Amino acid sequence: MIRVGILGATGYTARELVRILLRHPEVEIRVLTSRQEGRPPISAVHPQFAGRLELELTPTEPHHVAGQTDCIFSCLPHAASADVIAQLADSDVRIIDFSADYRLDDAATYQEWYGKRHPDPERLGQVAYGLPELFREQIRESKLVANPGCYPTAAILALAPLLKSEWIECHTIVVDAKSGLSGAGRTPKLTTHFVEANESVSPYSVGRHRHMPEMEQILGRIIGHRPSILFTPHLIPMDRGILATVYVRPTVNKSEDEWLDLLQTFYEGEPFVRVVEHLPATKDTLSSNFCDLTVRLVKERLVVFSAIDNLGKGASGAAVQNLNVMFGFPETLAL
Amino acid sequence: MIRVGILGATGYTARELVRILLRHPEVEIRVLTSRQEGRPPISAVHPQFAGRLELELTPTEPHHVAGQTDCIFSCLPHAASADVIAQLADSDVRIIDFSADYRLDDAATYQEWYGKRHPDPERLGQVAYGLPELFREQIRESKLVANPGCYPTAAILALAPLLKSEWIECHTIVVDAKSGLSGAGRTPKLTTHFVEANESVSPYSVGRHRHMPEMEQILGRIIGHRPSILFTPHLIPMDRGILATVYVRPTVNKSEDEWLDLLQTFYEGEPFVRVVEHLPATKDTLSSNFCDLTVRLVKERLVVFSAIDNLGKGASGAAVQNLNVMFGFPETLAL
Amino acid sequence: MIRVGILGATGYTARELVRILLRHPEVEIRVLTSRQEGRPPISAVHPQFAGRLELELTPTEPHHVAGQTDCIFSCLPHAASADVIAQLADSDVRIIDFSADYRLDDAATYQEWYGKRHPDPERLGQVAYGLPELFREQIRESKLVANPGCYPTAAILALAPLLKSEWIECHTIVVDAKSGLSGAGRTPKLTTHFVEANESVSPYSVGRHRHMPEMEQILGRIIGHRPSILFTPHLIPMDRGILATVYVRPTVNKSEDEWLDLLQTFYEGEPFVRVVEHLPATKDTLSSNFCDLTVRLVKERLVVFSAIDNLGKGASGAAVQNLNVMFGFPETLAL
Amino acid sequence: MIRVGILGATGYTARELVRILLRHPEVEIRVLTSRQEGRPPISAVHPQFAGRLELELTPTEPHHVAGQTDCIFSCLPHAASADVIAQLADSDVRIIDFSADYRLDDAATYQEWYGKRHPDPERLGQVAYGLPELFREQIRESKLVANPGCYPTAAILALAPLLKSEWIECHTIVVDAKSGLSGAGRTPKLTTHFVEANESVSPYSVGRHRHMPEMEQILGRIIGHRPSILFTPHLIPMDRGILATVYVRPTVNKSEDEWLDLLQTFYEGEPFVRVVEHLPATKDTLSSNFCDLTVRLVKERLVVFSAIDNLGKGASGAAVQNLNVMFGFPETLAL
Repeated sequence: MIRVGILGATGYTARELVRILLRHPEVEIRVLTSRQEGRPPISAVHPQFAGRLELELTPTEPHHVAGQTDCIFSCLPHAASADVIAQLADSDVRIIDFSADYRLDDAATYQEWYGKRHPDPERLGQVAYGLPELFREQIRESKLVANPGCYPTAAILALAPLLKSEWIECHTIVVDAKSGLSGAGRTPKLTTHFVEANESVSPYSVGRHRHMPEMEQILGRIIGHRPSILFTPHLIPMDRGILATVYVRPTVNKSEDEWLDLLQTFYEGEPFVRVVEHLPATKDTLSSNFCDLTVRLVKERLVVFSAIDNLGKGASGAAVQNLNVMFGFPETLAL
Repeated sequence: MIRVGILGATGYTARELVRILLRHPEVEIRVLTSRQEGRPPISAVHPQFAGRLELELTPTEPHHVAGQTDCIFSCLPHAASADVIAQLADSDVRIIDFSADYRLDDAATYQEWYGKRHPDPERLGQVAYGLPELFREQIRESKLVANPGCYPTAAILALAPLLKSEWIECHTIVVDAKSGLSGAGRTPKLTTHFVEANESVSPYSVGRHRHMPEMEQILGRIIGHRPSILFTPHLIPMDRGILATVYVRPTVNKSEDEWLDLLQTFYEGEPFVRVVEHLPATKDTLSSNFCDLTVRLVKERLVVFSAIDNLGKGASGAAVQNLNVMFGFPETLAL
Repeated sequence: MIRVGILGATGYTARELVRILLRHPEVEIRVLTSRQEGRPPISAVHPQFAGRLELELTPTEPHHVAGQTDCIFSCLPHAASADVIAQLADSDVRIIDFSADYRLDDAATYQEWYGKRHPDPERLGQVAYGLPELFREQIRESKLVANPGCYPTAAILALAPLLKSEWIECHTIVVDAKSGLSGAGRTPKLTTHFVEANESVSPYSVGRHRHMPEMEQILGRIIGHRPSILFTPHLIPMDRGILATVYVRPTVNKSEDEWLDLLQTFYEGEPFVRVVEHLPATKDTLSSNFCDLTVRLVKERLVVFSAIDNLGKGASGAAVQNLNVMFGFPETLAL
Repeated sequence: MIRVGILGATGYTARELVRILLRHPEVEIRVLTSRQEGRPPISAVHPQFAGRLELELTPTEPHHVAGQTDCIFSCLPHAASADVIAQLADSDVRIIDFSADYRLDDAATYQEWYGKRHPDPERLGQVAYGLPELFREQIRESKLVANPGCYPTAAILALAPLLKSEWIECHTIVVDAKSGLSGAGRTPKLTTHFVEANESVSPYSVGRHRHMPEMEQILGRIIGHRPSILFTPHLIPMDRGILATVYVRPTVNKSEDEWLDLLQTFYEGEPFVRVVEHLPATKDTLSSNFCDLTVRLVKERLVVFSAIDNLGKGASGAAVQNLNVMFGFPETLAL
């Protein structure tokens, strides 16, 4: 039984994490922190936990959390997260960081895209990226794991086999992604106000979304040089789910079945990647840790579809998968 | 051609009002005010008006608005609205007030329910309540009209014929209402955050909603004494629409057809009240100024269903209907 | 490990049942039947099960299913279900029936409300009603359990403590219920067509819904005589969830806290009924087996709010809870 | 005042058409046909028209409709529509055809994509395509106008200025489109069943959608040779709206402002195309005849966003715009 703590436990990723961990037979949730005033029970913030989890949200200092736990999930905002994690460097606690702070390769790119000097630049580029399908061995040994962004998860799982095969061009990739609103967080804003978002679809942050360099750098680690990706996210009026529609240009003449085979072979034995023949719907992956992939070959171009639950494989499901890998539990436990 | 101004033009009721007025052949929108910083064009706040209305939102003082217009719609919050309207008492401009400030009969009730001393108590109880179906002659002559609340509109139109007939008990009325989210306004809050409100139904302000005394007082004006209403509002994951399910106890033995006849006779010739035989859906009234009513007699109790669009007949549609009555235009113009 | 079969496994209640049973450590799904043409894998009908359950949907005869299993869930339509269950009378298999066939007390009421002669009238009135909170001992011993209707579950859990206390009138009860669309089944119809149901709320089957006599008869079993309930269901544009708003008239003078105490005492120790102080939202119970209850006292009338997931506590969650009771597993296993 | 008839008046495009025409001061709706049994009033099929339009849906023969009207809108399914229109060739009535029957250039392409021999092949390629922004003069003179498909409208309005400028490649165009459910029609199917479509996004008909050759052929008419378009439609859980995200490769080095200028100049004076600087949301065009366009230049590729209401500019709004052009009314009348 390992003891865990969650830093910043009021948001949607933390909520989904708690929901999954309550099913985990080897985990006990010990501490939930929040910078909010007062010490509300978690069920006052998330009524779904009434009668299920009696913990209070406390302003406990991170090093005190570290002292009581074996694993910390940081759901703090970027920059705030690295601040805290840097302080825990000499503790024994293992950390899974939901923020973007340790995903990128270098401090310059971080500063360019996040508009801040990185608080802990030395470790950048050395932290395991928490996609076990691609970095399982590194995750297993890591004290700190950077939990992937939701869009990068969908895009990287679609693109990794193709780029590794060298059957596609690296510089003409388009990722057109559609996401439910929970990806935008729990802080009320006009863009996520019900009447604004409902019954509408809209693009946002075109060419400026921070997940674009994340996709490029992580895929670069796999193939040894950075591909160029044009990434266009869209908001969809639903709670959960991401569909990434990925357009690539083949450099070889292969049939649709051969492309499907390529994916199937690449992900053989992976418990959470399902290479399917039908066109996936995000709802097929709802509340799960699955990523559903398929391909279509149209007019000599290849379209790859990748569906996940942004709070599942795109965040909290992946975090628990990483915990399972790190602590030697069966990888599908609780998932 | 009459010139109109809208005070507080950023919210949903003002937006819907502009949308309707742009179709009105006898109205010219002259001024839109907002206390926001800057002087953004209306299309920067509501992109649907791009290319349709080139006005800026300005912080124009109300008496200057009055000087340029024949009719002012006040979409200001309660208390703020009466503050302004009190200052315009000696102007010639006619005013349709969307706030609750002039709907109630007396300052004591206002203070009890709105938690503030009324800024202009002398006029309370003398202002026309903007439901032409019940107060048309008074509206026609009025300089100031109190535009009704959305829930009261649905409930009062259902209950007025029944209470007037004296065929029902006055003190056992239940109004169970279901409303779309636009009724909660445009200011982002956790309760109206997409992921909180979507895929959920929940009651709120049970026994404490300010529209409860409004229903009782207005119906009291019609029958000469106040009925007692138990009002329970619920939030429904949709943009627009209110369904009021009204439970009453008959004091006479009548058939369902006789109840339907009662409503049909009461609303004969009314252009915006449709007494129908089928069970109405809110969507039948979407973007319209209609109120659809029907009844069902079950186990000797009567259930009345009343469906409106909360931004149509429940707010901005009603306001234009009132303008038409006040200025002698055909009542259905632009509606 | 018990072996289970599901008859009629294509609908939403069966799908949710499979989803829950896949997490159940003491259950193995052996057979899924369907009268559809062909023998599609379950994942072709419900892609969420791709890679998780490899069974085919087969037209297996019920007595063959009985021969291979310890427990059968019948998700067949009413009448069809009793036809099959009557044939399995001399088998050892235990049965949980999702249909309405064994919920009512007598064949005459069945015929009146379901428009058919009951295929197995002798057993009516003797079958355990699958609400463990009220009938746990009877369920434990039963070979056949009638899984409750979704609306009755929400209403009965709200009303049972009040009626047992004799603190309320029995003949003035109103149940105004709001339900997501999954309650209407998986067969495409105009009323459940997306564009018809979305962005709309509408009542249906007012005074004619089959769950009305079910509520009355089951509550009658508890208090020894039948209460009278006016039941009004409404369709809400969401997938899952029921909120029942229950209006009752107290016969005693009690405070809101005393009413809350009454519920809390009644459900003390029940793992799935949460008596809460806040107003519940259906989303708090999403994908769970919980029923959230609270009360408000307004103008000497009592309003009880009861929230469930219609596919959880309202159907498949309850069925697994019944299985746990019947087979001596911890009641919360897999839930 | 012109008299109009609508053939096949039960679907969503006909419903929206009636809604718009009821506001049209120069149009009188004379006949609504339907092959349904009985002669239901239109308000029995579409309750929103209760009290607004008292016509019955009748099985009137098309040539009788032609005898009573000046303009017929055919909302019949493809093939059925051309069958009827071919019979009306020697009548004086002018026809706006919502079906795809007269949109394509040749019978072979029609047969390839629609799986049927064309019933009236001689006229193919000579019929005006009902996008006044591109074919106004031809529409003005036409007896028969092919009302455009919803996806082609969004894509063609985005692409026409770019292709005409010869500033982009013609064979690397990608159109990734997102559509609300009303585009899928009013016939209940599993894919448009609320619980299947809600809270999900999914691609469909990838590389096989019939609107793909329509886009290519119509754009081909403008530039003199056919471009190649990879078209990927997706279903979005909302009633109305299409967003087309169009990816093109520039052949010239231009700034984002220059691209925007290109569009603005092209559509100068067009009342229904709004070239905006912000990223458009489909909701900005809801219930309107607008098409909102903007561009973003990212990594030397150009992304064009095109938002319409699929029932507005994508169908019925466009049809009324065409009627206005054909009969010499102001083009924005009723729109």
